[in-house]
Amino acid sequence: MSTTPSASSNVYAATELPELGFRNYWYPVLAAWRLRQRPKAVKLLGEEVVLYRDGGKIYALKDQCAHRGARLSRGKCLYPGSGTLSCPYHGWTYSGETGQVVAKLMEGPDAILPAEARVTTYPVQEHNGVLWVFVGDMNAAPLEEDLPECLAKPDEWHTIGTWRTYRCNWRVLNDNLCYDLHAPFVHRNSPELFFQPVFPFASHVTTTKLENANGLGYVAKDGVTEASYPGLGLFPPPRETFFRRLRPMGRGQEMDREKAQAVKRYGIKYRHMSCLPAVTLVGRPTGEYFMVRWVTPIDAETTLFYSINAFRRRGWLATQLDRIGWAFWMSWSHDWIFSDQDKNIVEGVRSNAEQLSPTDLGVAAWRKFAVENARRSPTEAPTEDDRPAPVCADDAGIGSAAE
Amino acid sequence: MSTTPSASSNVYAATELPELGFRNYWYPVLAAWRLRQRPKAVKLLGEEVVLYRDGGKIYALKDQCAHRGARLSRGKCLYPGSGTLSCPYHGWTYSGETGQVVAKLMEGPDAILPAEARVTTYPVQEHNGVLWVFVGDMNAAPLEEDLPECLAKPDEWHTIGTWRTYRCNWRVLNDNLCYDLHAPFVHRNSPELFFQPVFPFASHVTTTKLENANGLGYVAKDGVTEASYPGLGLFPPPRETFFRRLRPMGRGQEMDREKAQAVKRYGIKYRHMSCLPAVTLVGRPTGEYFMVRWVTPIDAETTLFYSINAFRRRGWLATQLDRIGWAFWMSWSHDWIFSDQDKNIVEGVRSNAEQLSPTDLGVAAWRKFAVENARRSPTEAPTEDDRPAPVCADDAGIGSAAE
Amino acid sequence: MSTTPSASSNVYAATELPELGFRNYWYPVLAAWRLRQRPKAVKLLGEEVVLYRDGGKIYALKDQCAHRGARLSRGKCLYPGSGTLSCPYHGWTYSGETGQVVAKLMEGPDAILPAEARVTTYPVQEHNGVLWVFVGDMNAAPLEEDLPECLAKPDEWHTIGTWRTYRCNWRVLNDNLCYDLHAPFVHRNSPELFFQPVFPFASHVTTTKLENANGLGYVAKDGVTEASYPGLGLFPPPRETFFRRLRPMGRGQEMDREKAQAVKRYGIKYRHMSCLPAVTLVGRPTGEYFMVRWVTPIDAETTLFYSINAFRRRGWLATQLDRIGWAFWMSWSHDWIFSDQDKNIVEGVRSNAEQLSPTDLGVAAWRKFAVENARRSPTEAPTEDDRPAPVCADDAGIGSAAE
Repeated sequence: MSTTPSASSNVYAATELPELGFRNYWYPVLAAWRLRQRPKAVKLLGEEVVLYRDGGKIYALKDQCAHRGARLSRGKCLYPGSGTLSCPYHGWTYSGETGQVVAKLMEGPDAILPAEARVTTYPVQEHNGVLWVFVGDMNAAPLEEDLPECLAKPDEWHTIGTWRTYRCNWRVLNDNLCYDLHAPFVHRNSPELFFQPVFPFASHVTTTKLENANGLGYVAKDGVTEASYPGLGLFPPPRETFFRRLRPMGRGQEMDREKAQAVKRYGIKYRHMSCLPAVTLVGRPTGEYFMVRWVTPIDAETTLFYSINAFRRRGWLATQLDRIGWAFWMSWSHDWIFSDQDKNIVEGVRSNAEQLSPTDLGVAAWRKFAVENARRSPTEAPTEDDRPAPVCADDAGIGSAAE
Repeated sequence: MSTTPSASSNVYAATELPELGFRNYWYPVLAAWRLRQRPKAVKLLGEEVVLYRDGGKIYALKDQCAHRGARLSRGKCLYPGSGTLSCPYHGWTYSGETGQVVAKLMEGPDAILPAEARVTTYPVQEHNGVLWVFVGDMNAAPLEEDLPECLAKPDEWHTIGTWRTYRCNWRVLNDNLCYDLHAPFVHRNSPELFFQPVFPFASHVTTTKLENANGLGYVAKDGVTEASYPGLGLFPPPRETFFRRLRPMGRGQEMDREKAQAVKRYGIKYRHMSCLPAVTLVGRPTGEYFMVRWVTPIDAETTLFYSINAFRRRGWLATQLDRIGWAFWMSWSHDWIFSDQDKNIVEGVRSNAEQLSPTDLGVAAWRKFAVENARRSPTEAPTEDDRPAPVCADDAGIGSAAE
Repeated sequence: MSTTPSASSNVYAATELPELGFRNYWYPVLAAWRLRQRPKAVKLLGEEVVLYRDGGKIYALKDQCAHRGARLSRGKCLYPGSGTLSCPYHGWTYSGETGQVVAKLMEGPDAILPAEARVTTYPVQEHNGVLWVFVGDMNAAPLEEDLPECLAKPDEWHTIGTWRTYRCNWRVLNDNLCYDLHAPFVHRNSPELFFQPVFPFASHVTTTKLENANGLGYVAKDGVTEASYPGLGLFPPPRETFFRRLRPMGRGQEMDREKAQAVKRYGIKYRHMSCLPAVTLVGRPTGEYFMVRWVTPIDAETTLFYSINAFRRRGWLATQLDRIGWAFWMSWSHDWIFSDQDKNIVEGVRSNAEQLSPTDLGVAAWRKFAVENARRSPTEAPTEDDRPAPVCADDAGIGSAAE
């Protein structure tokens, strides 16, 4: 199956990104409250990992005993407080800190514990009510380095996370999040936007590197909310517009890049950003809310979609109202209905062939940015491919209407 | 896995026929009433196709958007009457006639619509209450050319169709239909034949090319309905014969090739015929009924068995009686029970090895006829293999009792 | 995936044993009462076999008709008493003795029955209420040769068999049975042993060839039932020991190799033995009970675990008590709970890497014994590998605490 980047060798095909995700990043894997007394098996980037808590700490080890290959996730913390996990089969007992075997219970205290009797450890952290695991070959970056500010500063933001498993490769789901103008089409009748005009489309999208060099910000200009197509008629069709009486609000409201509170008060330059490894932020003009969509590859056909709603702390009462608003409205309208409109589509996508188009400028820009800027261990070869120009504008080589 | 045509290089092994079916033919894929407002995904010969109706016409396109690979079958006809289908993802809108993109809704009316922004179209037709799709590389033949007369002339025949999915390769199911003398054995206790003698077996089968050169007619002579096997006893065993008091009738009645009404009045020469691409006709001595069994390959392991009962129109009342007879008797006794006796067997068949035998003269003849006569696009190489003699008689090289 | 025998080339990796099991042995496949009037399909060592009873005998044939590949297991014994099975498709009728076609029912009594019209036969026997099938290329050994005495002599022993299907390769399950000291760990809280001390661990295991040269006997010395691990604490942890007030009994009782009745009265030298092809015996000091665990490979990922409880006949009343004891206690505590503790672990094992350790002396010894002593047909090459020393002691090269 050959993959055909449509217009220009300046564009990366979906399949040129690593199938199992970018290594050497932190990924959310499990709601913290779901890890209790018993160890838990998770899988990310194709690797099987056991998580466990002991003595107030959390540990992550490769979920395969070095001895005879049993799953450590079926074992127990036999010695609470020691930070160890014992294999269910012959009691090889691993230090969660080092991955080293510290006892082979069935061999007695005098057993030889050779250096190779160990399993891989994974850096793991609890943060924002989520367990984050670092997968890669390098030393783990500090978690905060991989987090957007709204997640990195829990004293300024409070969060509510949800998750869902998608039956598709992570790249298909992540492409969906790169401001590719599917939203005015796919979500036009979503309850959240039902009485508002559709999102603007046919916009001119540009992308700019974020100051922290970890991602891209999207800006869309000159969009319309209605257009007439020769031989077809209006989009949206009139039968879908007569009831759209509200003005844009909430999610539907664009950010005025001069006057919006987000910009003036908080210095947030973009309403929509994509960051490495596969994270999307969608904000509001108030600068007081972000929806963070973290795409965690499980294996080549399965992806964990970890969605975190981040609200700026504005006092106790506001926090309660945020939570009530989420529970009675957003959890349903957005985290469920809106997202399922995408899920239904992306789970059917086949990426063996594609023809990128001007609506995909964001996708092309993100792919290029990601491939060229992702962390790499020093042993990894540099990108074999050094594609010249940035894809942040019409020079992307994607066939465009402007010419 | 080597395949061993048993006796002679003059015989084609099952696996020498194309695994996904003969291309460049029409195949039935869906009862017409099942395609309503929403597009419908079907698969045939390994190809995924979306069917939709608009403005009184039916269209068939490859079920994968050229843009980012979403399934068109999850899209909608947003502009009724225009004959277009819009992709659910970014609204690329395809002409059902040409497969060409006529609008990219999210890019505005000025979007460039390059020639390569298109998907394959499939010829599709509604006929006899069934949707027929042509798969191949050549221009579609007229549908009538691929239909037996009883389906081609709806003013002379009325039809009732049913379908069933089989978990086997199409070749295994089609072999089952080539007058291979399994019927006297497999179906001997089927309700349709319960009180009649079993079908004749140990017959001498000959095959003759049909006048339209599209298939073979089978003639069986000298069959018996009982025989005694040394060391075993009678077939059928006596415990299965004492209640067989009726004379052959309906399906059980052979056609007298001199006197039968089918021959004299209607000029139907054969009661049992196999036609390309994988169609079987079983008639009656009256010449007023045909059971048409159309084998549509879905993929290498799955097959659609489309069964059409065709009744000659003999006035309004006769038509009503045909329909009542079908509803209360044939639908149950034949389309269900009788066919399931085969389904149970063919779904377990493994074709990696076979030893054809005189009962398989029909199978061998059909395979040879089909391989050598199937439509081929000019670009396709001719059969690499030109096996000499016809398989219409004992010269088939299949070990026979006559020598 | 490379397999790494941990310490020495003297040790065979799991994957060096044949993936589908040792051929040329008898294996239990089905409880005899489950084969009634209808033929039954079973699979062992990757081969599909149909079993049927006729005229008081049992037959086993390859479950694929030589003619067109239908499953004989969907056929019938049409001629009771003749020992034949008829294919469901065209009635090819096979002698259960020879596998030869004795009639092609649909071709009449004069059909040619060539020598190649046959299927493989498998030696099959009913014994101890179980059907045993011999798979291989050699002439079948007498069944008794492959059976331990407690199964070979039904007049001295009575038996109760149960079975379970495991989703793992047979090697993983068989390793579990080779006195590898998992039991003191995995089963320590099993109901059977709940109030007794755990089995001794950290023992010094030696293995000795059995007199009949068909397997190994295990002897463990110097085990302890409690030990203290630096930095961790006691094993078993005190919270698991305060209620262990009983003395070792039943299964928990070691065999005194000088005084035990098993030794003195019955000449049984080992309480735990492994035999070819993949059979484990665990006895009692009384010498009046054996649990026989027979591991029958089904395919590469599935294994039949056939478990036979053998009780020495000690009069009518004792037999009844044995049966009652089994029904109300052992069936639950052992054949179900105890075995499921293992099943839960072995079904998760991946054998692509392992580090054998002194607890695995039994495993290593058995692997070596099995590879070097398994029956081989004369046409099979000898083991490519002739690893020098026996693995019956510390010279196994498995890193040991004693050095």
